[in-house]
Amino acid sequence: MKANPNFSGVIAPVVTPWGDDGAPDFDRFVEHCEWLLENGCTGLAPFGTTSEGNSLGLDERMEVLEDLVDSGVDPKRLMPGTGACSLTDTIVLTEHAVEMGCGGVLMLPPFYYKNPSEEGLFRFFAEVIEEVADDDLKIYLYHIPPVAQVGFSLPLIGRLMKEFPRTVVGLKDSSGDWSNTKAILDAYPDLEVFPGSEVFLLDGLRNGASGCISATANVSAAGMRRVFDNWQGPDADKLQDGVTALRKAIQGYPMIPVLKALIAHYRQDPGWAKARPPFTALPEAEAAKAVQTLADAHGFKLEFAEAA
Amino acid sequence: MKANPNFSGVIAPVVTPWGDDGAPDFDRFVEHCEWLLENGCTGLAPFGTTSEGNSLGLDERMEVLEDLVDSGVDPKRLMPGTGACSLTDTIVLTEHAVEMGCGGVLMLPPFYYKNPSEEGLFRFFAEVIEEVADDDLKIYLYHIPPVAQVGFSLPLIGRLMKEFPRTVVGLKDSSGDWSNTKAILDAYPDLEVFPGSEVFLLDGLRNGASGCISATANVSAAGMRRVFDNWQGPDADKLQDGVTALRKAIQGYPMIPVLKALIAHYRQDPGWAKARPPFTALPEAEAAKAVQTLADAHGFKLEFAEAA
Repeated sequence: MKANPNFSGVIAPVVTPWGDDGAPDFDRFVEHCEWLLENGCTGLAPFGTTSEGNSLGLDERMEVLEDLVDSGVDPKRLMPGTGACSLTDTIVLTEHAVEMGCGGVLMLPPFYYKNPSEEGLFRFFAEVIEEVADDDLKIYLYHIPPVAQVGFSLPLIGRLMKEFPRTVVGLKDSSGDWSNTKAILDAYPDLEVFPGSEVFLLDGLRNGASGCISATANVSAAGMRRVFDNWQGPDADKLQDGVTALRKAIQGYPMIPVLKALIAHYRQDPGWAKARPPFTALPEAEAAKAVQTLADAHGFKLEFAEAA
Repeated sequence: MKANPNFSGVIAPVVTPWGDDGAPDFDRFVEHCEWLLENGCTGLAPFGTTSEGNSLGLDERMEVLEDLVDSGVDPKRLMPGTGACSLTDTIVLTEHAVEMGCGGVLMLPPFYYKNPSEEGLFRFFAEVIEEVADDDLKIYLYHIPPVAQVGFSLPLIGRLMKEFPRTVVGLKDSSGDWSNTKAILDAYPDLEVFPGSEVFLLDGLRNGASGCISATANVSAAGMRRVFDNWQGPDADKLQDGVTALRKAIQGYPMIPVLKALIAHYRQDPGWAKARPPFTALPEAEAAKAVQTLADAHGFKLEFAEAA
């Protein structure tokens, strides 16, 4: 645990609902965000991978964030994704997030061009930081090589931390590779490290991680929160085992569509199931099977105060 | 060769020069575009991969295109890249290109999320086409799996052509795999197919391709144009051999930085060598070696009317 962390605990990369017109549905989005913060999440990372963040346009991202902050959610609990392929759009989104008072930003590396040099990636982040030029900017590096292909090497992380110690404060590791997370934790004890899956939550906490930022926190943050709150207690391993089993069961389905299908089912709101191309909604039969399987094997359900 | 092609011949994905402030340098850009059209190119594809197109911001792309059209270049000869990760930004860029009167657009698939379904990709393009809703929209599918990772399967190409026969008119194949290009040419004789490298120019033309869209056309379009103009003549193979050898020599260096280094050298304009992060300029020693090697082995040089 860090001395004065900007974030810790359970953070959800919030799924994005779409209206009948295909645009982001602000009302459903805000309602889901508020529910998450009341049901286990300590923070939210809108516009992550699970959020279909890169399927949102530049202006849409800023509009959705403004709506969320206007709704009354504390911006210090928000860590929006602001990394884009282009330096320019990354700066636009990052400046905007800082202006909105966000506690941090989750920043992908520029991911179109493959095998960039370490020097080129360093310069990209250096230019963003120097252009935004604001001490309130707190960057969480977003390492997700299975999707972005471009990632952060240990030396690059160290170089960025050394050059920008007050700005480059954390990292989300979605490599899915515990040995990589462990190596980062060992090398940089001052970095706020969040594994990208709750499967590594307890091991992470025992090795200095700050929590987790996980797709499935959209539907099962409460269990993760129990692990986080009790990680030094006698039941920690047992709590983690339950969380791990549920995660693995959900992972049997395409992640973004199944999360939306689960929310749609329990909210009795079929519109929630929509995905924006290139994603498609889970077919109804598969959605029904997911609901049933998770309920039978894990007692999984979602309880919404507003639901009928 | 198609009956009424929108494009044919040699098309350059124009490299983008950067000013001292790091912004796109409009004057250098327009000068280079005009020189290309006077020195072998039949068309231009700004904001392709070689253009560092995905390193330009949403607004920058539109501003640069407006400047280019304002400069007097015939927009019918322009095929700007308009494909982005998000549906929304792809629509914005595509509508803008059509409004500017561009002869076509070169459209990447949404490339952040990996392994999208064919249905999801189809819906993405369908939504773009239905939203832009303009008969003047002519889409060239941009297949470049080595970089974008996401590409176009033969069935997807056929489905898009069948559903949108007046809109989906062509494809750039930058797979680097001749057997893939050949399969597309054989399956879809009505499609305007452009291999992404001049190495396949003559083989392409003999099998129904429309020309090529190639990075190296930025510095060596004239030779490609000779192949294109004489592909049925007795010297075709010999002309192709020269073009292939030069391409392979240039490929020995990082493509975008070496093209800029060559232009900087022959224009006597060191500012041309700049690249935007995550790219970096070619180190001076390597640039000098490239100039010398290409001159010695291939008699390579660039002659600019305005140069000292």
